[in-house]
Amino acid sequence: MTARLERQIAFLREADKLKTVLRASRLHDDSRFENSAEHSWHIMLYAFVLAEHAHAQVAIDRVLKMLLLHDLVEIDAGDNPIHGVVDHAAMEREEAAAAQRLFGLLPEDQAAEYRALWEEFEAATTPEAVFAKAVDRVSTPLSNLDTGGGSWQAYDVTFAQLETRVGVPISRGAPGVWTWLKPRLSAFFGANGRL
Amino acid sequence: MTARLERQIAFLREADKLKTVLRASRLHDDSRFENSAEHSWHIMLYAFVLAEHAHAQVAIDRVLKMLLLHDLVEIDAGDNPIHGVVDHAAMEREEAAAAQRLFGLLPEDQAAEYRALWEEFEAATTPEAVFAKAVDRVSTPLSNLDTGGGSWQAYDVTFAQLETRVGVPISRGAPGVWTWLKPRLSAFFGANGRL
Repeated sequence: MTARLERQIAFLREADKLKTVLRASRLHDDSRFENSAEHSWHIMLYAFVLAEHAHAQVAIDRVLKMLLLHDLVEIDAGDNPIHGVVDHAAMEREEAAAAQRLFGLLPEDQAAEYRALWEEFEAATTPEAVFAKAVDRVSTPLSNLDTGGGSWQAYDVTFAQLETRVGVPISRGAPGVWTWLKPRLSAFFGANGRL
Repeated sequence: MTARLERQIAFLREADKLKTVLRASRLHDDSRFENSAEHSWHIMLYAFVLAEHAHAQVAIDRVLKMLLLHDLVEIDAGDNPIHGVVDHAAMEREEAAAAQRLFGLLPEDQAAEYRALWEEFEAATTPEAVFAKAVDRVSTPLSNLDTGGGSWQAYDVTFAQLETRVGVPISRGAPGVWTWLKPRLSAFFGANGRL
């Protein structure tokens, strides 16, 4: 048991680094950028609170586990802002290598279980993953509304881009939340759809 | 549905403030103090990874939900460092008022459910709460070991105090983890049990 526990503790110590990965989004009080560890906590709270708005019956425990793990690869691969210009093939290679290294710190059975949960989230095909992807898109628009534009301004985002990058996944996984959110975003972007 | 969703969003926006509550513990790289939101994420990861070391069969989904919510009251009541001098009666009043206000932002059925989960955690009598309380005590000793003493130095903690405040809850909820951790802490504190 000691050898297993040592691997588990090594993984948990390494995971601490997620607290130093900064995202493009800011706290609602605009005091600083958000890090990916506190973001993961917040998104799990979103999932728990908003579960009744899911597109289908979802097993909330699997959603929470996916969201607990979903950003760990950023320890090696960094955060890729949704509105940034990204080489998707390179990003996928980096994140796969990160998953290999990080989950590989764990005992083999746990490494396989966690890797499978992360891949399920990334593939976004099961009801749980579709809902998890949706809630992962809800928080940044809300903090951007609270901070006068936030990352939308930094990345010169239009309302049309927001409908594609945020509206599509949210309406797929939590349609009622997008129905509520869309007019608020539209009003913020104004008639010409630009800030 | 819109009225429910508005209350849920109000709660989720308010919850963002947990990211600004600082704890006495530091990140493992010693760069800064840890906040209670990222701590909550990390402790959920501890619970998920270390579940096999629980003192009894536990429903991990209930453990995760408890830990997701367990520190929210600190938004109003602040963090009370485990080694600090605290007026326990006053703290309990403050935290109860915080739970009333914060969970009260939600629709009534959710407010009651979350309040019950938080009270179950605080009471530390169910198998899940006992395990959740145990993992909540594991991370700070590990970061203190990595940062040359951390909050133990700030609060002039002795090994005997650590056995009571940390050893008792960990050995109750995750006995094998305390068996592993105790000699490491003992070696760090040395023969006289003081830093």
